[in-house]
Amino acid sequence: MRRLLTGLLLALAVTPAAAEDIVLRGMGSFHVGGRIAEVSGKEVRMIQRQPGGPMTKLDPNGQYMVEQMYVQYFLPKTKKGKYPLLMWHGGGLTGVTFESTPDGREGWLNMFVRKGWDVYNSDAVERGRSGFASADVWADAPIFLTYQDPYERFRIGDGAGSWNADPSKRKLMPGSAFPAEAYENYMKQSVPRWLSTDKAIVAAYLALIDKVCPCVMLLHSQGGTFGFQVAEQRPDKIKGIVAVEAASPGNIANAPKLKGVPVLQIFGDYVDQHPRWSTFKKADMAYGEAIKAAGGTADWINLPDIGIKGNSHMLMQDKNNAEIAEVIQKWLVGKGLVD
Amino acid sequence: MRRLLTGLLLALAVTPAAAEDIVLRGMGSFHVGGRIAEVSGKEVRMIQRQPGGPMTKLDPNGQYMVEQMYVQYFLPKTKKGKYPLLMWHGGGLTGVTFESTPDGREGWLNMFVRKGWDVYNSDAVERGRSGFASADVWADAPIFLTYQDPYERFRIGDGAGSWNADPSKRKLMPGSAFPAEAYENYMKQSVPRWLSTDKAIVAAYLALIDKVCPCVMLLHSQGGTFGFQVAEQRPDKIKGIVAVEAASPGNIANAPKLKGVPVLQIFGDYVDQHPRWSTFKKADMAYGEAIKAAGGTADWINLPDIGIKGNSHMLMQDKNNAEIAEVIQKWLVGKGLVD
Repeated sequence: MRRLLTGLLLALAVTPAAAEDIVLRGMGSFHVGGRIAEVSGKEVRMIQRQPGGPMTKLDPNGQYMVEQMYVQYFLPKTKKGKYPLLMWHGGGLTGVTFESTPDGREGWLNMFVRKGWDVYNSDAVERGRSGFASADVWADAPIFLTYQDPYERFRIGDGAGSWNADPSKRKLMPGSAFPAEAYENYMKQSVPRWLSTDKAIVAAYLALIDKVCPCVMLLHSQGGTFGFQVAEQRPDKIKGIVAVEAASPGNIANAPKLKGVPVLQIFGDYVDQHPRWSTFKKADMAYGEAIKAAGGTADWINLPDIGIKGNSHMLMQDKNNAEIAEVIQKWLVGKGLVD
Repeated sequence: MRRLLTGLLLALAVTPAAAEDIVLRGMGSFHVGGRIAEVSGKEVRMIQRQPGGPMTKLDPNGQYMVEQMYVQYFLPKTKKGKYPLLMWHGGGLTGVTFESTPDGREGWLNMFVRKGWDVYNSDAVERGRSGFASADVWADAPIFLTYQDPYERFRIGDGAGSWNADPSKRKLMPGSAFPAEAYENYMKQSVPRWLSTDKAIVAAYLALIDKVCPCVMLLHSQGGTFGFQVAEQRPDKIKGIVAVEAASPGNIANAPKLKGVPVLQIFGDYVDQHPRWSTFKKADMAYGEAIKAAGGTADWINLPDIGIKGNSHMLMQDKNNAEIAEVIQKWLVGKGLVD
């Protein structure tokens, strides 16, 4: 009976406020950054631009717009966050990470807009609506994740060997909060990535900071790596950082630059049993310690320690995503970042 | 004085209702379609997943999720459109086409949401947030537009030779309504495209129709080509089609299948002087005539004929985009598609 009641209360607490309207004073999108790249000395070829159409000349030589970044924003009528909230996704993904979950529930984008934050959700350079450059501009080929890769690597399945082409034979993490029945939809969000574009990605993120900040950052995975690097270069513009399972922190020698920026790092479940994630976690914690040693604020939340269990690497899509958003919101309130 | 007054009245008439809130009963995103592709017999290679990180094995063999399509939706609280409105962009572009204009004004997405339509804005397969497949799955390489290409080809500049790297020396169409000062931002919206993916694109659009329709289609350029092809296969699901400068119509032999679907085709300015666009226009008109010959409804609006001048191929981004949205809305009202 007590369990039933707890369950009911929890259900009430985390039920998305989907019945409530979202009232926006504005929404839109823009691109930032980018540069003109020059291509020359390449062969002209003939192509058919549409099936049945005429053969027309394609001259690949010339100028190209490359390395820009797409940003979509939602501005709630009742603004409570003191600064814009920038959402930066992880590797091989786009801003879709923060939109509806693979099983169709509300994601953190909607939740934080509902909490009164001006949200700026971007697709890193080369990914999604940012577009990408040709092999004449970026020499390397992009890499693609297999269908099973994140299942085994993102703590959805129980490590290597947990995948099976037959969904009924897959071995989920015990108590997993990931919406595994919608894994196919999750993989539809996956996009290729290049390994040579980090500098271009950081340059575009800096352009975003210079356009919309002061701001608060909400970073995930590889977005954490980029976010800390960028924050080290613009510490005065960053009023708070929430890093969700950062794949790696910034340069630890630069950590003291963040002594004026409150930082929260969050990790989900099953991390310590997993060599990859426990390594990331140790590096992230060391970075946090270096911020504290310089007199700054670096908080740490290990979700299972506060009773939030079953979380994969895709925390913001897990079934308890509303509960974790609330944990983040409380921290932001505590740091004076909410009116 | 009269000119000043007319100007003022026009400014009032087309001023975006930016000061009014956008009230949504929901917003979100999903992917439709897609298939699992099998890759085998490819060489394993070693890669560095992040700078300074360890060399790790990349085995390209395995299963991949490919050819899915991204869709973002906005559902106004006060719904007036009788059916969902599907926005399909043109070649080398994404759903960003319908978002904020390159110079930062409101685009048709916001405008039609404000008019009370449930809007579903998608990125065709391979583009934007739909992701793309590797060269192991799609054999051809994508094509990229040079920085100057749309300027000369989309009736922004005055045809071939109108481009100059120095913006002050570019030769705009006389009376152009395109926000040419923001051409750079327009080109940041450009994405590569493949020439081999039409079937996959149509398959995903069909999956979208099967998920959210009955509906009304708002098609642009290459999106018109796909839209008519798809409508021919699902005429019962389509309650109206607005095709804005369709790059080519559907299969004229199938036009009678659309006899129960009201169709509006719209073309902008400078079309008849331009061999490429006048050819498209003739084919589109012939398709409309074939619908009419079968007893259907195919209307035609040549914008300059109703006093709306200066429009490039990117009508929805031109400075008079609100005026054109109003023309479309009136047609939709006239066809009984608005409550």
